[in-house]
Amino acid sequence: MRNLKIVLAYDGFDFRGWQVQPDQPTIQGTLAECIERVTGEKVLPQGSGRTDAGVHALAQVTSCAIASPIPVNNLVKALNDVLPAAIRILEIQEVAPDFHARASATAKTYRYRIFRGDICPPFLARYVYHHPFPLSEDALFLASDRVVGKHDFTSFASVDPERAAKDGEVNNVRTIFSSAWHLGEEELVYTVRGSGFLHHMVRNLVGTFLLVGKGTLSPNDITRILKACSRSAAGPTAPAHGLFLVKVEY
Amino acid sequence: MRNLKIVLAYDGFDFRGWQVQPDQPTIQGTLAECIERVTGEKVLPQGSGRTDAGVHALAQVTSCAIASPIPVNNLVKALNDVLPAAIRILEIQEVAPDFHARASATAKTYRYRIFRGDICPPFLARYVYHHPFPLSEDALFLASDRVVGKHDFTSFASVDPERAAKDGEVNNVRTIFSSAWHLGEEELVYTVRGSGFLHHMVRNLVGTFLLVGKGTLSPNDITRILKACSRSAAGPTAPAHGLFLVKVEY
Repeated sequence: MRNLKIVLAYDGFDFRGWQVQPDQPTIQGTLAECIERVTGEKVLPQGSGRTDAGVHALAQVTSCAIASPIPVNNLVKALNDVLPAAIRILEIQEVAPDFHARASATAKTYRYRIFRGDICPPFLARYVYHHPFPLSEDALFLASDRVVGKHDFTSFASVDPERAAKDGEVNNVRTIFSSAWHLGEEELVYTVRGSGFLHHMVRNLVGTFLLVGKGTLSPNDITRILKACSRSAAGPTAPAHGLFLVKVEY
Repeated sequence: MRNLKIVLAYDGFDFRGWQVQPDQPTIQGTLAECIERVTGEKVLPQGSGRTDAGVHALAQVTSCAIASPIPVNNLVKALNDVLPAAIRILEIQEVAPDFHARASATAKTYRYRIFRGDICPPFLARYVYHHPFPLSEDALFLASDRVVGKHDFTSFASVDPERAAKDGEVNNVRTIFSSAWHLGEEELVYTVRGSGFLHHMVRNLVGTFLLVGKGTLSPNDITRILKACSRSAAGPTAPAHGLFLVKVEY
């Protein structure tokens, strides 16, 4: 068997997330169907992580073992011919047998886009969170800095029924390497790179940062919320469709 | 009654075109429903022209008469609150009673986007025609120039069963003020401004220009095709989702 590392981009707006579900359009399920159409093999490609319904990816990584001898460049073309235009394979590499898209990942980068103008162009509406309300940029910049480093992120982790049932022990400590807001013309963009992310973690961080931007919380509250280790201490979950998985590192 | 000029943008990908149809998502039908929700009045806003299923608009214009005294800026906000994010009202003005979005229009501008790279990003796929094949840019530039001026565009008009049934006499003479291709990084963009456009005319022009770009036809053939006054002389209809109604002038 050959072990393949597949890099793919997707517009997640019309999908029920990464993970295969019966009778629902999912990225993993659609990809598995197309691999079977091209190679005749039933495989379930393993993602670097599950993205939620509506979340996009500029470069998600998935791995799977196949028997077919088809050259990787031909497989890229053949898969893109049968996949819907909302999912594109960017690259396929043959990798060592012990490579696993999730277990081997060393860092991930996510981006969250907020559109601030009064009227959100229809062509952006699937890819940004429209938030046309005043926000203190200085407060946002300070708040995002408070999560850099190694912390227990329990306060920013939504309960994940599926994972809780599977895993006996839970370790919510993660390391954030960088966390910053950038100011675009009509957008505010948050980019975060870390060792790993808990369920809804980026969306919960953004939802909480927005409370700081509004003045409901102060940047110092972020440190307090981290220490509380309680989901109820933090703010709401920002909408899925502003979020992009940007990069997975190995 | 007040006569309103409404300027709106839409992502037409998931709609069955401008014109209201029973049990189908259309721009005109959705807009009429939302005007009724906001004002309580049943009206059918008249567009500057019907856009086909899948065609987008940066600034379509529609007119309608309403009795409600709601100030225009409030109406913009109220309609955008109830419309889907794929349709945005950009501006509403109160205009003279004799203004009609279609009859009063003096010029329209359309744009057609072609993506040339090997892999079309999923975030562009709804808004461009993916055409990763060699094209002679010089030939395209020459071809687009041949349609400038006053011509009978019968060769570039698809049969429109609805309109043919309604109108007794058919006049397919239109004036094109400008017609040109522009080269982007990975895109070829065609922009055309004219007095008016026949059914599928821009898409038929683009489909024919692409045959010139491929070398199947020469730029001189465009002049021959115009003179033929026969739809079968021209090339195929380019896909709808690359087309944008950019501007309507009065």
